[in-house]
Amino acid sequence: PVIIMTDTLLQGLSTVAGEPVAAAGGATFHAVNPATGERLDPEYREIGDADLDRACRAAGEAGVSYRESSGSQRAALLRAIAGEIEALGETLVDRYVAETGLPRARAEGERARTCGQLRLFADLVEAGDWADIRIDRADPNRAPIPRPDTRMMLRPVGPVAVFGPANFPLAFTVAGGDTASALAAGCPVVVKAHPSHPGTSELVGRAIDTAVRRCGLPAGVFSLVHGQGRRVGAALVRHPAIRAVGFTGSKAGGRELQALCAARPEPIPFFGELSSINPICLLPEALAARPETIAAGLHGSLTLGVGQFCTNPGLVLYVPGAGADAFVDALLERLRETPPGVMLNRAIRRAYAEGLARVGGVRGVETLLAASEDCGPGGCHATPALFRADAEVFRRERVLHEEVFGPASLLVVCRDIGDMVETLLALEGQLTATVHAQPDELAAHRDLLAAMEQRAGRLVLDGFPTGVEVSASIVHGGPWPATTDVRFTSVGTAAVYRWVRPVCFQDFPQALLPEALRDRNPGHVARLVDGRRCTGDV
Amino acid sequence: PVIIMTDTLLQGLSTVAGEPVAAAGGATFHAVNPATGERLDPEYREIGDADLDRACRAAGEAGVSYRESSGSQRAALLRAIAGEIEALGETLVDRYVAETGLPRARAEGERARTCGQLRLFADLVEAGDWADIRIDRADPNRAPIPRPDTRMMLRPVGPVAVFGPANFPLAFTVAGGDTASALAAGCPVVVKAHPSHPGTSELVGRAIDTAVRRCGLPAGVFSLVHGQGRRVGAALVRHPAIRAVGFTGSKAGGRELQALCAARPEPIPFFGELSSINPICLLPEALAARPETIAAGLHGSLTLGVGQFCTNPGLVLYVPGAGADAFVDALLERLRETPPGVMLNRAIRRAYAEGLARVGGVRGVETLLAASEDCGPGGCHATPALFRADAEVFRRERVLHEEVFGPASLLVVCRDIGDMVETLLALEGQLTATVHAQPDELAAHRDLLAAMEQRAGRLVLDGFPTGVEVSASIVHGGPWPATTDVRFTSVGTAAVYRWVRPVCFQDFPQALLPEALRDRNPGHVARLVDGRRCTGDV
Repeated sequence: PVIIMTDTLLQGLSTVAGEPVAAAGGATFHAVNPATGERLDPEYREIGDADLDRACRAAGEAGVSYRESSGSQRAALLRAIAGEIEALGETLVDRYVAETGLPRARAEGERARTCGQLRLFADLVEAGDWADIRIDRADPNRAPIPRPDTRMMLRPVGPVAVFGPANFPLAFTVAGGDTASALAAGCPVVVKAHPSHPGTSELVGRAIDTAVRRCGLPAGVFSLVHGQGRRVGAALVRHPAIRAVGFTGSKAGGRELQALCAARPEPIPFFGELSSINPICLLPEALAARPETIAAGLHGSLTLGVGQFCTNPGLVLYVPGAGADAFVDALLERLRETPPGVMLNRAIRRAYAEGLARVGGVRGVETLLAASEDCGPGGCHATPALFRADAEVFRRERVLHEEVFGPASLLVVCRDIGDMVETLLALEGQLTATVHAQPDELAAHRDLLAAMEQRAGRLVLDGFPTGVEVSASIVHGGPWPATTDVRFTSVGTAAVYRWVRPVCFQDFPQALLPEALRDRNPGHVARLVDGRRCTGDV
Repeated sequence: PVIIMTDTLLQGLSTVAGEPVAAAGGATFHAVNPATGERLDPEYREIGDADLDRACRAAGEAGVSYRESSGSQRAALLRAIAGEIEALGETLVDRYVAETGLPRARAEGERARTCGQLRLFADLVEAGDWADIRIDRADPNRAPIPRPDTRMMLRPVGPVAVFGPANFPLAFTVAGGDTASALAAGCPVVVKAHPSHPGTSELVGRAIDTAVRRCGLPAGVFSLVHGQGRRVGAALVRHPAIRAVGFTGSKAGGRELQALCAARPEPIPFFGELSSINPICLLPEALAARPETIAAGLHGSLTLGVGQFCTNPGLVLYVPGAGADAFVDALLERLRETPPGVMLNRAIRRAYAEGLARVGGVRGVETLLAASEDCGPGGCHATPALFRADAEVFRRERVLHEEVFGPASLLVVCRDIGDMVETLLALEGQLTATVHAQPDELAAHRDLLAAMEQRAGRLVLDGFPTGVEVSASIVHGGPWPATTDVRFTSVGTAAVYRWVRPVCFQDFPQALLPEALRDRNPGHVARLVDGRRCTGDV
């Protein structure tokens, strides 16, 4: 069952260390075009246990030499992957659009973001400063005992298993942020493709395989495995060669995989991004001054990508007063005029409907705008929804704190700013918290700012949470369940720190040290030597 | 029940935010002098649930303002604590010796280490570079959308619960590495005192309370709670105000607390240091060249502190050949001549005896030296033990991989270096891995080095694992169960990274940013601005 897509054959097979696996028995599935309901060829076949074992072992073996690769070698790989993805051209965009129902412009934008992200990590590892190198030289004369020579740097944890979500077929999956940061760190990667876009995944996987080969690296550095149910994912995170897991997806799925990681004979780090409703606080003066502007910005953020973003603003807190009615009216008008969008798959569309019913069914919640029940030809069309409740009701009804994935938001009416602060503090952990305020207005409410920081990883002033920058200074993480470990980010260059561990070499001769820890520092990497930061030789 | 110790009153009470709690009902316990079996006054009373709740809430409230403290303010606190500990003088040393059976020189050395550690963290936070500050300025002209101003730094996670072990009454407990690094990070601390040395803990706790008061910080920054069973510890890690946990102790205890952290409505980071047997590999040429020297060094490391160190060398791998017999004979002779030492408490002495029985009872294990069964007047005296087994037996019998806490080691006879590598790779995660080699000998065995790195956080050449430096470049951590998260160290300045999280401020005006993120950089902190490291203003 092979289908020709322009000049590229999709085979429907997992690849282990650069080679497609034989299509043995096992379950099969198809991608479906959510706009039309049309089944997309080819048929995809779940990877078998033996082949999955081979992928993980190959990653473990490749990891021993890939660990010693230089920053330039890793940078070359990351850039080659970006180049190969771009070389897929329209084939990739066509398949992306067919599998997701998202517009071409989004596909192109996400491709640019993905390739930019790969090149950002390439720059990072080429420069080398990220590895937190520390050298304390020996002091044979120290009393009461001589001081040894100790040298530490961040080294790769080993093979990483990556699980991407449905909503970012490029930037968060096969060659997305988890893979890019893991490869940058020196870790081989085994990606479990999302069954919602297996063709996009196969194309990108092939681009990575080509890049790995072109760079002369061991093929085990990358494998791509397909599976629809839980078996493949569970076996992957349990495999002894896998040393860390990156996951973006649902709370339930994430909790399950995390528990498997914790129950291994040797537990390993699990980083999951699970859920966020991204509160937006509208302070009274701002609301009075620019109700329509805020409504327009919120509408754009809420409906972008049919609301299918982890930073989608699902919660808006305000105090009734001047501008409040104008804001709500303007928002409602824009939402009513929003044409139906195509959600990523039927499971997501179904979950959206269930979420809306859950919220709308809570006593004390007012439905300001109900979503259309018409799901269109593919069963995936959806329109926005808007609800309103008092802060007290919201705080009491925990079901309202759960993410509704899609273009829906809940307006929460607070008695005053104190009530708003109390509501923020009652939230689960969030990726973002936003506030709109007039100049000087926020300075009078430091407790609101403190609450925002306590509950979220990124604080936004006068903006909207969607449209996450990919940069050195971005944070995409937060207290549970935004992410499973508040100490890391999954976007931006700091995402590399999820996949590294400090290793100390005590009294080693130059030749046996990793190159970056030797006295000579030809790349002028910033290192901490005897307590002083320097870029020269030791 | 108050006892006068020189000029200091021990009260036997927990302190919550600087105030001793009223001695309500609840269980009580005494410290015991392990050298004599003598019960030590005063009676200690377990903290009640309501007081524990107060301690955690006070930490949560203090955390809001302590989070905003400057590096100099935190440095002043850490230095004040060191000064107050030193001011306790002989009172502290006397109580330490009475509660542990350890010699005065050890007490004094550990005090110096503890105070040095506090001052090291003071220097770290005063300099400020550790906080990984990143600033990317706005670009209103960027296409297709303007770039926002984003600024990120590492900020405290919030209140940390600290559980110290029996074997480091100063350096790993009340004012030890976990507390020092958490306070440096900007986190309040609630310490659960180890019931084996409650008096030492009370004295140090009082020193911290005095320092907090002297520095004008909120008293909730530190609380010290007593408890003997599981109730207090379990309630502590479950409390919603606690945001991270540091634990040094047993595998069983650590697993239990970690599971409680994971089962919270909002799971939090748990860092535990649980177990390590610290393999030492003796390569043939080194063994042939200096068998007696290695034996002497190993003996010193193995019996230091009656073997009660987490880096105690419990496993020695070698290949039979020239020097092997001389090494074993020399080691045995030194061990036989070692006088009995006093272990920390009866539970540890009992566990030592059980561990020896467990190892000695394995078929294929030869007991080269049995420990004396005489436990002395306090029930805590112990002598060293030495065992030997083939690598094959060792790899098969997982019970031999378990730590025996005390002055016991197992010699593992390997067929060749390949057998040694296989044995290393079969180990659980370790804090350290050591190799003795002649110059150039190790270069021929890169696979051994790779295996050491795979299994341990600190690699030592021609030395011994005990005597952990406290420095910028040290690593005291490793794959599970050495520590529960391989990505961190619990000793050295990098230990601070366990208690911080990245937070990003997007489009914030100067006045609302944390001081360290503002344009002005009066402390000349190294920051990454628009991709370039610089120490000036923005």
